[in-house]
Amino acid sequence: MLIDPTYPKSFASDNHAGVHPDILDAIAAANHGDAPAYGDDSWTSAFEVKIKEVFGPGAEGFAVLNGAGANMVGLALMLGRYDAVICADSAHIATHEAGAAERLLGVKLMTVPTEHGKLQPDDIKARLGGIGNVHETQPTVVSISQVTELGTCYSPDEITALADTAHAAGLRLHMDGARLANAAAYFGCDLKTITADAGVDVFSFGGTKNGALAAEAVVVLDPSLTDAVPYLRRQSLQLASKMRFISAQLSALLTDDLWLRNAAHANQMAARLANGIADIADVSLAQAVQSNAVFAALPPAVTETLLRRYSFHYWDKAAGIVRWMTAFDTTSEHVDDFLDDIRKAVAST
Amino acid sequence: MLIDPTYPKSFASDNHAGVHPDILDAIAAANHGDAPAYGDDSWTSAFEVKIKEVFGPGAEGFAVLNGAGANMVGLALMLGRYDAVICADSAHIATHEAGAAERLLGVKLMTVPTEHGKLQPDDIKARLGGIGNVHETQPTVVSISQVTELGTCYSPDEITALADTAHAAGLRLHMDGARLANAAAYFGCDLKTITADAGVDVFSFGGTKNGALAAEAVVVLDPSLTDAVPYLRRQSLQLASKMRFISAQLSALLTDDLWLRNAAHANQMAARLANGIADIADVSLAQAVQSNAVFAALPPAVTETLLRRYSFHYWDKAAGIVRWMTAFDTTSEHVDDFLDDIRKAVAST
Amino acid sequence: MLIDPTYPKSFASDNHAGVHPDILDAIAAANHGDAPAYGDDSWTSAFEVKIKEVFGPGAEGFAVLNGAGANMVGLALMLGRYDAVICADSAHIATHEAGAAERLLGVKLMTVPTEHGKLQPDDIKARLGGIGNVHETQPTVVSISQVTELGTCYSPDEITALADTAHAAGLRLHMDGARLANAAAYFGCDLKTITADAGVDVFSFGGTKNGALAAEAVVVLDPSLTDAVPYLRRQSLQLASKMRFISAQLSALLTDDLWLRNAAHANQMAARLANGIADIADVSLAQAVQSNAVFAALPPAVTETLLRRYSFHYWDKAAGIVRWMTAFDTTSEHVDDFLDDIRKAVAST
Amino acid sequence: MLIDPTYPKSFASDNHAGVHPDILDAIAAANHGDAPAYGDDSWTSAFEVKIKEVFGPGAEGFAVLNGAGANMVGLALMLGRYDAVICADSAHIATHEAGAAERLLGVKLMTVPTEHGKLQPDDIKARLGGIGNVHETQPTVVSISQVTELGTCYSPDEITALADTAHAAGLRLHMDGARLANAAAYFGCDLKTITADAGVDVFSFGGTKNGALAAEAVVVLDPSLTDAVPYLRRQSLQLASKMRFISAQLSALLTDDLWLRNAAHANQMAARLANGIADIADVSLAQAVQSNAVFAALPPAVTETLLRRYSFHYWDKAAGIVRWMTAFDTTSEHVDDFLDDIRKAVAST
Repeated sequence: MLIDPTYPKSFASDNHAGVHPDILDAIAAANHGDAPAYGDDSWTSAFEVKIKEVFGPGAEGFAVLNGAGANMVGLALMLGRYDAVICADSAHIATHEAGAAERLLGVKLMTVPTEHGKLQPDDIKARLGGIGNVHETQPTVVSISQVTELGTCYSPDEITALADTAHAAGLRLHMDGARLANAAAYFGCDLKTITADAGVDVFSFGGTKNGALAAEAVVVLDPSLTDAVPYLRRQSLQLASKMRFISAQLSALLTDDLWLRNAAHANQMAARLANGIADIADVSLAQAVQSNAVFAALPPAVTETLLRRYSFHYWDKAAGIVRWMTAFDTTSEHVDDFLDDIRKAVAST
Repeated sequence: MLIDPTYPKSFASDNHAGVHPDILDAIAAANHGDAPAYGDDSWTSAFEVKIKEVFGPGAEGFAVLNGAGANMVGLALMLGRYDAVICADSAHIATHEAGAAERLLGVKLMTVPTEHGKLQPDDIKARLGGIGNVHETQPTVVSISQVTELGTCYSPDEITALADTAHAAGLRLHMDGARLANAAAYFGCDLKTITADAGVDVFSFGGTKNGALAAEAVVVLDPSLTDAVPYLRRQSLQLASKMRFISAQLSALLTDDLWLRNAAHANQMAARLANGIADIADVSLAQAVQSNAVFAALPPAVTETLLRRYSFHYWDKAAGIVRWMTAFDTTSEHVDDFLDDIRKAVAST
Repeated sequence: MLIDPTYPKSFASDNHAGVHPDILDAIAAANHGDAPAYGDDSWTSAFEVKIKEVFGPGAEGFAVLNGAGANMVGLALMLGRYDAVICADSAHIATHEAGAAERLLGVKLMTVPTEHGKLQPDDIKARLGGIGNVHETQPTVVSISQVTELGTCYSPDEITALADTAHAAGLRLHMDGARLANAAAYFGCDLKTITADAGVDVFSFGGTKNGALAAEAVVVLDPSLTDAVPYLRRQSLQLASKMRFISAQLSALLTDDLWLRNAAHANQMAARLANGIADIADVSLAQAVQSNAVFAALPPAVTETLLRRYSFHYWDKAAGIVRWMTAFDTTSEHVDDFLDDIRKAVAST
Repeated sequence: MLIDPTYPKSFASDNHAGVHPDILDAIAAANHGDAPAYGDDSWTSAFEVKIKEVFGPGAEGFAVLNGAGANMVGLALMLGRYDAVICADSAHIATHEAGAAERLLGVKLMTVPTEHGKLQPDDIKARLGGIGNVHETQPTVVSISQVTELGTCYSPDEITALADTAHAAGLRLHMDGARLANAAAYFGCDLKTITADAGVDVFSFGGTKNGALAAEAVVVLDPSLTDAVPYLRRQSLQLASKMRFISAQLSALLTDDLWLRNAAHANQMAARLANGIADIADVSLAQAVQSNAVFAALPPAVTETLLRRYSFHYWDKAAGIVRWMTAFDTTSEHVDDFLDDIRKAVAST
């Protein structure tokens, strides 16, 4: 699958987009002379300060290389040898990280069928029955995805309710925040409101899908867990030797609200796409659009016609559902042209 | 440890250097429009072709994010559940990858005391006694480092002898090639001569220490092993979503022999440093200088004086041995100024 | 929970029963002089011959210490680093082995909701969609339990259908045969018919629940897998040093059809119990009775009354379902007395 | 290797011996009616009380199935994800447990060359240099073997010195006590003196080599660790369902000092053998005899002659060193006959 680099825009993934110019500039600016390796440099110090500014003085940020890495490091912090993680059965850690949770962490994922990809407090309560039974793994962590795999978002109150339920049972709350920026943009809140303030213990803050080259942060709010991060990051193959270039990306995202501008724009493009299909016959939304993902149901022939020209993925081929993603660099023109082509494809079938 | 970005040059690590301008340009050039994620892009295809050009048509290259990742993916390919790896006790996988081999691979490292960091064929033979004994792990892989942790290099003939010994016993030969370029530069041979032609089965080709931002390649010469790489790379947290930017770095290194120019220059700077200390009283080489590393023995007071101004590491503090590394961007002036300061420090103590 | 050793009989588990006298005699008979350790003894040789007699000349038997151990060794044989096992969500490996599959094997269990605990061929087919997708674990083994956790049995034809489906897709079929004897007794067939002849690749043959002290066998029908068993058994902590005493137990079970006599008797006692409750108001079967397990639905007050005197477990407390197990040493009088007490409990509530 | 069950006595391993009659009687006595499974029975309660009587009220005992299992459960208690264990390079966990430490625990073993198999306090101190370095595994446990693989014993003072050194550095002390009874017999002290009183945190108490069928105990002296044992024992495949038969063996060993009578007798037989060879030309001791093991150096031709009639193992074939083990059931006549045959073999070569 080789894509013409300029047009038409891919709607397959926010990973198909390139690097935001400000982030590329930050990388270039960091390429000045020597710097200590493995994070003992001034760019990384600056990033660590920014994490505290954004998430509060109790937050400690650790830069890593990709989203699965951020999840594995973050979860490893909280897991003993016979522990289990409660998560949605659609969670990225359960479905699309190639078994890293089981292989690298040795953990059982207690997967929960959900509506719209969102875990509920009762889902947690219903999975605590085995606590104290030596034949069963012991749930110690609840992991949620913000944004979920279905493009939906947990509100601050929903997160607080999950955190309270988890904490009351002695479990911690982890958030896979690969698209945390999109969720904050959707709610119009700051990043702290849907993480630290809502009771999350450990989360990732995704950069790559939001305009970075390759940069994610693990953010730890429980001070009893921070000492272990550097060792787990190193062991988990997530420690960049020339760390300054990772830290510089994250700092750029956290400067002048670039994370928000990128995410809000991507969300707006998804909303524009969703609005645009509202009046197209035979095409309908399969999920509420709360981020930069549009799940749509459309006739197979329409999908096949569109796939001849556009890059996007089936989500559930049997059900005729596709996923369209927008990115920081998706333009209104991209969306409108795509909508035109959808209309034409519908008309011609 | 915050370093003045321009001066004096760090002699602590080739990871303290930044990114070679050609590689930064290649990253910027790849930032053009959309590209499929996870390696299904044209930059990655170009990289794969270059690997075959350099290492032969039987070589398959897979880009990963860092050296430890390259080692873990490469070794995982060849290891079953009760296997052992024979390696030098100074090997990076044994000493400086935070236990990733044991934790992520579950493998026993049969570590061998060596002179100058180099494994000998007899070291392999001496560790085959437990084959067939169910109480012992079964050695199936020999892993060598090129350049070794002590800055020494295996000649093509030495590698062939190790490969022959390993293969005769049914073991495979792995090479940690984090500084493979420096070894090829030292011998004045091409990369294929000291890898594919010498009988190596799987190796890594390091980019980061040689001017890249973050890019290494796992190269597989045994076709029976290639199918597993993509899965292991994904599971091992080494698959970049925006892969084009990793592939572009590796392709830049493999274009117009940039890998060689960088490595040969770094080697020359190390040789210049080694030559320079030859006539300084109380300072002597602790290892032969065959790459971009200089191991030197010097009086503690001299070391302490130098460390007030320069960044470098003790190798063996008790023995008074330090390690000085040069990089692609170390200049003759950097070296000469350092030599001056060494002389002054010696004179003043 | 201390039980009067003689009466009333426990209906909680076939593990509450002791050791069959013939098996204890076999242990005592093996306690004669020296024997080589770790299986190189004549009792173990005799056991290995018996396995071939019972399961066919292509079967290789390996004695282990418990059921979870048998499952872990058997599965480990067939699993690579990024593999998944398809199994019922009620499977013992998924629910009651304390996460050993995830921790010790690093494997993802693709759990399937089932009716009556039995996997169907379509369940396998529905979980093959991720094959070839590097982001997903790759299913390579289907694991079924014979008897299932719900006391039901797979018929020879049902096993063959699962084996055919698995094999057609390149997967192997594993059977957790902790109660394999009870299934063979139920169908009135020999052990080979529901294992080797039906297409199972690797299975366990349980002894402990059927009158042994502690003895299970891993039986391997695929000759490409047998070489690895001794190493995996040792590493998995399942190799007895004084192996003769484990082998002697298994040989005793396989002598004069003791396995069948024990299992058939236990099944008959379960059938007697099931028949007995057929005419008790407010008490009904929750699963078909095909082995030595009776799943019954009864009013909470009746259950609580019975639990004051008898040992048995809730299966689903919310649904009012309990599990009653019989054993080789359950007598008709035990069952009839229990039935009397059930009737009295019902009458008094 | 099939051995005549009566004569000549094997000198290969204490695992070649059978079960002491008192222990077999205890097993038979436990086979009376029903008992709860998995340790919730009165035999196990009695065992737990005996552990406290022998090792002090702060000791908690957990019965497991074999020595490697005891080691893995005991070590798992104390190890995090990036930890290392300091141990002798001859330690059973490092050499003869088929890589279980690396595979099941994911731990790096920092192996130390030793004289006579015994770790020294300075060996610990010399391996603490990497603490705090994220590239290195972090030593958190020191593991010693009592008796060592070379038949030598740590005195109470030596253990205390190791415990003090370990504790001062924040590490815990583990003891592989597969032959703990033999060490106590050698020093003429009680079991508590060389474990709890000497500062050991977690140890195993071996039964199998000392007359049991298959029974070992993990004993935990640090109360912060006990809660995890049941889960780790279950997950590590070391929980017997019919636990009463394991507990009964251990209780029998701890009744009327059977452990001591067996071990002291075996030690005496080894001493008799060692004394006997003192005046045989060309045969000499290779290690001090402090337990039931005799390491002897003898001419190859003598060894070969003896091996035609006797069962024993080479320890170091190149060096002409063999290992002879005695057991609880070795008699003076066995030893004297063996000595006669050694003398004859020497005379005839």
